[in-house]
Amino acid sequence: MTVLVVGSVALDSVETPFGKAEDVLGGSATFFSASASHLTQVNVVGVVGNDYPLDKLQPLTKRGVDLSGIETADGASFRWRGRYRHDLNSAETLETHLGVFSHFSPKVPAAFQAPDFLFLANIDPRLQLDVLQQVKRPKLVACDTMNFWIESRRPDLLTLLEHVDLITLNDGEARQLTEQSNLIAAAKWIMARGPKHVIIKKGEHGAFLFTNDRIFYAPAYPLESVFDPTGAGDSFAGGFIGYLARSGDISEANMRRAVVYGSAMGSFAVEQFSVERLMTVTKAEIDQRVREFRQLVAFEEELPA
Amino acid sequence: MTVLVVGSVALDSVETPFGKAEDVLGGSATFFSASASHLTQVNVVGVVGNDYPLDKLQPLTKRGVDLSGIETADGASFRWRGRYRHDLNSAETLETHLGVFSHFSPKVPAAFQAPDFLFLANIDPRLQLDVLQQVKRPKLVACDTMNFWIESRRPDLLTLLEHVDLITLNDGEARQLTEQSNLIAAAKWIMARGPKHVIIKKGEHGAFLFTNDRIFYAPAYPLESVFDPTGAGDSFAGGFIGYLARSGDISEANMRRAVVYGSAMGSFAVEQFSVERLMTVTKAEIDQRVREFRQLVAFEEELPA
Repeated sequence: MTVLVVGSVALDSVETPFGKAEDVLGGSATFFSASASHLTQVNVVGVVGNDYPLDKLQPLTKRGVDLSGIETADGASFRWRGRYRHDLNSAETLETHLGVFSHFSPKVPAAFQAPDFLFLANIDPRLQLDVLQQVKRPKLVACDTMNFWIESRRPDLLTLLEHVDLITLNDGEARQLTEQSNLIAAAKWIMARGPKHVIIKKGEHGAFLFTNDRIFYAPAYPLESVFDPTGAGDSFAGGFIGYLARSGDISEANMRRAVVYGSAMGSFAVEQFSVERLMTVTKAEIDQRVREFRQLVAFEEELPA
Repeated sequence: MTVLVVGSVALDSVETPFGKAEDVLGGSATFFSASASHLTQVNVVGVVGNDYPLDKLQPLTKRGVDLSGIETADGASFRWRGRYRHDLNSAETLETHLGVFSHFSPKVPAAFQAPDFLFLANIDPRLQLDVLQQVKRPKLVACDTMNFWIESRRPDLLTLLEHVDLITLNDGEARQLTEQSNLIAAAKWIMARGPKHVIIKKGEHGAFLFTNDRIFYAPAYPLESVFDPTGAGDSFAGGFIGYLARSGDISEANMRRAVVYGSAMGSFAVEQFSVERLMTVTKAEIDQRVREFRQLVAFEEELPA
């Protein structure tokens, strides 16, 4: 089944304790599609400036990603510059230049207007709502958001919640949105406002999937060296939605498997700068990592006393 | 099989966002034995002042805990006063009065000198080493420690590592001891110095068990309300060692189950002040929570494509 993602296509400059990268591929839609395209057909809607090295996205096209919904506008591309300190847990933003992204008005091409799955990556909730009006109702609509929109677009975000099936957000954003310090209480707060499922991402501490009164937990894959955390969340979302779309099954049991695929894709993303590792990872490596997730949490039934 | 624990028996005064408790049962040996006694026979070595309400420990005696190794010394009992803010993640110590504990010199009674399992709770590594010399080599020796000893008794702690099979410590302590920010690297550093197994506790983010090149991860039980985190780590250790001692099996497979029992006991401990919940929890409730841990992380094999 096909997935439509609407989000940013950017150029990142990143400094970590292990090295530097300048003007490398970045943005939520880029990470999402680099991840999801291992599992299903992905169509992208976004905007870049006429300085964007679109040729560098060709490896995605080869994997079947349809980039024809990326509009090229006059002006500079969205650029982000950030730095991670030794703990790698939080990025310090050094510069943000929105460029043409500041006037982004997503236009979903006719060929993309009946997606099976829709991921509204982290953009202005007003634009996320606008995209929803341009498409035939998908099998599943998921969205992401961030602290900036929670502060500045709270009413729009609450309206959006009424129209999505699932939201992914990190623990800090969940607490900020709901004003609940406990994550179970936060998830209940959100589910009472629309989404049937809530995924709360805790970075190196894993992710929760909440569905009604059931909780699933997947750890982060324990990596001995995390190289660059940028894009981990969007790569997670790409693995999660991509897995659901591959099977077309949105049962809670299948969502659990999808969270593990999301965690696996997130763990690959952080092994190199940008989408480098997502470009080279193979199906066999993905399947092997999913098996390792099972080993990581497996414990046998107790023997009878 | 029997477990010997050597540690503190204290009186805690605790303030949380949900209430206050004054001079309630506390200390590492107290939490450990309240937890482990649900699973096996526990003998305690410790010291209290002649002001200690020993009668309040009677419920432990009824569960088979042998308290005859608790010496009563002239002077005041060890008292700790702490406060938790809304996030409940870290205690703020308001007062520490070591009292008779400052001269603690553990004397293992003859009847306790051949334990099957030994837990050296968080005390001076010199005393932990001294206890080791008083006992016949147990099937498994585990120890805990804290930032204070890592700073002030580093050489003794490193000597201790050569003589223990397993160490439990939290993520901050693991990083401080090893000067490795990555927890896998930290565990390898420790295993290279003696212990065959390392448990790194991450509080609300669960716990890792490292054995050779294998990693097991158990989440913390997601509680909607954590009442008082005091003693969670020692209750975890009590559940872990208690489960190993019940079965006498120290295989890696059984240690995985033991970590889940530890996590379950830790999750009960934080539901009320002091050892209150550990005093009332039933075997059926413990088994039910272990089943819920399995549900929390369970995902089915993928169906053939």
